[in-house]
Amino acid sequence: MQDNTSDTVRRGAADPSIGAALMARLDAFAAFSEEPGALTRLFLTPEHAAAAKQLSGWMAEAGMTVRTDALGTVIGRYEGTAPGMPALLLGSHIDTVRNAGKYDGNLGVLAALAAVQELNRRGERLPFAVEVLGFGDEEGVRFPVTLTSSRAVGGTLTPAMMEVADREGVTLSDALRAFGGDPGGIAGAARRDALGYVELHIEQGPVLEAENLPVGIVTAINGATRLTATVTGMAGHAGTVPMALRRDALAAAAEMVLAVEATALETPDLVATVGRIAAEPGAVNVIPSRAVFTIDARSSSDATRRAGLDAITGRLRAVAARRGLDLSLETGHEATATACAPGLIRQLESAVERCGFRPLRLASGAGHDAMAVAAAMPVGMLFVRCRGGISHHPAESITAEDAGTAVAVLLDFLRHFDPSNLAA
Amino acid sequence: MQDNTSDTVRRGAADPSIGAALMARLDAFAAFSEEPGALTRLFLTPEHAAAAKQLSGWMAEAGMTVRTDALGTVIGRYEGTAPGMPALLLGSHIDTVRNAGKYDGNLGVLAALAAVQELNRRGERLPFAVEVLGFGDEEGVRFPVTLTSSRAVGGTLTPAMMEVADREGVTLSDALRAFGGDPGGIAGAARRDALGYVELHIEQGPVLEAENLPVGIVTAINGATRLTATVTGMAGHAGTVPMALRRDALAAAAEMVLAVEATALETPDLVATVGRIAAEPGAVNVIPSRAVFTIDARSSSDATRRAGLDAITGRLRAVAARRGLDLSLETGHEATATACAPGLIRQLESAVERCGFRPLRLASGAGHDAMAVAAAMPVGMLFVRCRGGISHHPAESITAEDAGTAVAVLLDFLRHFDPSNLAA
Repeated sequence: MQDNTSDTVRRGAADPSIGAALMARLDAFAAFSEEPGALTRLFLTPEHAAAAKQLSGWMAEAGMTVRTDALGTVIGRYEGTAPGMPALLLGSHIDTVRNAGKYDGNLGVLAALAAVQELNRRGERLPFAVEVLGFGDEEGVRFPVTLTSSRAVGGTLTPAMMEVADREGVTLSDALRAFGGDPGGIAGAARRDALGYVELHIEQGPVLEAENLPVGIVTAINGATRLTATVTGMAGHAGTVPMALRRDALAAAAEMVLAVEATALETPDLVATVGRIAAEPGAVNVIPSRAVFTIDARSSSDATRRAGLDAITGRLRAVAARRGLDLSLETGHEATATACAPGLIRQLESAVERCGFRPLRLASGAGHDAMAVAAAMPVGMLFVRCRGGISHHPAESITAEDAGTAVAVLLDFLRHFDPSNLAA
Repeated sequence: MQDNTSDTVRRGAADPSIGAALMARLDAFAAFSEEPGALTRLFLTPEHAAAAKQLSGWMAEAGMTVRTDALGTVIGRYEGTAPGMPALLLGSHIDTVRNAGKYDGNLGVLAALAAVQELNRRGERLPFAVEVLGFGDEEGVRFPVTLTSSRAVGGTLTPAMMEVADREGVTLSDALRAFGGDPGGIAGAARRDALGYVELHIEQGPVLEAENLPVGIVTAINGATRLTATVTGMAGHAGTVPMALRRDALAAAAEMVLAVEATALETPDLVATVGRIAAEPGAVNVIPSRAVFTIDARSSSDATRRAGLDAITGRLRAVAARRGLDLSLETGHEATATACAPGLIRQLESAVERCGFRPLRLASGAGHDAMAVAAAMPVGMLFVRCRGGISHHPAESITAEDAGTAVAVLLDFLRHFDPSNLAA
């Protein structure tokens, strides 16, 4: 029976026991939390330290040599056929949002660990080293900066970013020192020596569920722009101002919200969202003089995102002009897209196919550590289906079967990994 | 010169000195306020008492006998050609909102007083008595009920309404007793004996300004319905959920806001306003799961208002159904329309024409004391142009010329007033 299962795994199908073990480990790992009964694990906190210690222990059991880099990232190394070979990096993050789900970040780290554990159990060595990284700062909840641990690996972390403080006034560098990290050792954390970085992560969206697929291959991490739109009209009594004499800021904003939606619906590979809106003065019986709303636009293509934003702002200005209202647009956060390396996309696709699934390509709408690591090496991402696309919530859910499939795909990918020509 | 002016007034044109005097009096009256430099005069406060005392003094100077009714309404009586004749009531309110303008309410009381003062100055007696009423409770700022003083005159005030309390826990009846009123004397305040009630008031809307007219004749005080709409969709990550898989509550609400506006634009004598909106969870990068907004719909015709609301709710349900979202509608405040007496409308129209102006009929979108008084007698209203339609704000503004015209129209109306057949 055990041999049959092993053969099955060699052929690419998932081993149910691996999925079950991974789910049990994710459950156990969720206990490292600031509060009982809910998962909250912020960067450089005692919970983070305890989780890192547990992760280190599991890595050592899986035959890895374990260290922690200057930023507190736990790194387990599984040597290749010879010691000291260049390493392929796998991983994700072990910090969480407040009242988080168990899978965001943690799945990617523990699935990579499960794959290495399986290699180690079988005594398999690959023609390259495999390192599993557990980053500590992806969610950006504690400090006003984020991705510092993966930026360090990517070689783009600056000393200035270390001097920001949390709400209690503790600077990142002080918190890091207390954690056992080394704010002075940032430069040494960069990994330009690595072959590439592959991150497995729950989709945090509904596409795989809608396509009835357990995994999908990420083509790019979307670039994003955030705008704040302010529409200024004229207040008036809801009873006394005839419809034709109104300059209603909220009615104009409503038309603009629909223009945002319509533009995104019409534009392939563009999503745009109005998440916040307010009308002023905000009384039931007063025609709004001002409406303020946000726009979040994302695309895996920077050109598409910029053209989409141009189309959106053009439509918004047309609405304002037609209604005789003022419109001001303020750009907040803006980030360019991160393309996954074409060679890694193809190799992940092949692994998915060999495991018996249609290889679906999709963009990542959310940000990930891979964005920051990409500054130093080719990156790839494998998404895992999650129920209802729900994430950042205790209801975040995946199946043991999908977890097993994810590890099987990762194992297959590793066994076939060809580091030559990843970028083209 | 004085005789010329008098002749002019007799022929219906305004006397500039009357307008100027009225404006000066309105400025002086605005000093009766809770705070220096801003006008705030709430029901049954020391400021209200001081204003009532000043008003009583001015009434006495104008040849009126002055009393205060059970609800604290100041009533000045100017006898007709014989003592004890039936009275035509004129008036408005002397309470204000917080940080109010000087004209809302106060103009109607002091313009009526100015008209009587002019009759008295000329020794003119009419074939009926004229009483000027200064109501104290139109804005409803202090207590959770409103129009109590005009309801008392209309005969619909109930003892239960007197037991509500303000924020400090003071009941209306206790506050009234301290003011010198008589909570037990409600029934005696009803004025079923009166010939009718005519209220002059600033328009609080932009119609007269747009029509370039100083005054207009009110046909009805609009009925109003307030609804709260709650749209429930599904939250999701703004980056990860494709447009086609979204159930965005705010995008649906935006479509509904436009449906409210479109229905009112298409329906004569219907205004509808969305004054408040909120999206939940209300984060820039989260697709809204819920949107809540208010609808305020008004018409001078109850049938039009109800049909308009049916059309609006039908459109809203269609939007929700097409988008696969839930919609709940909750009716809050609802008030039927108050028609002005046809005979009073016609007589006010004639007075406006005799004063040289086109008699424009318009509905009142805001509520007024006339609504409550209408329970006991025919009511009519004359609107006065105000700048930009702005009201309930220190920027509320009228011209001295319009104030003079308003008094001239009121005087002309009084001189021609025919109490027979007002309702038909």
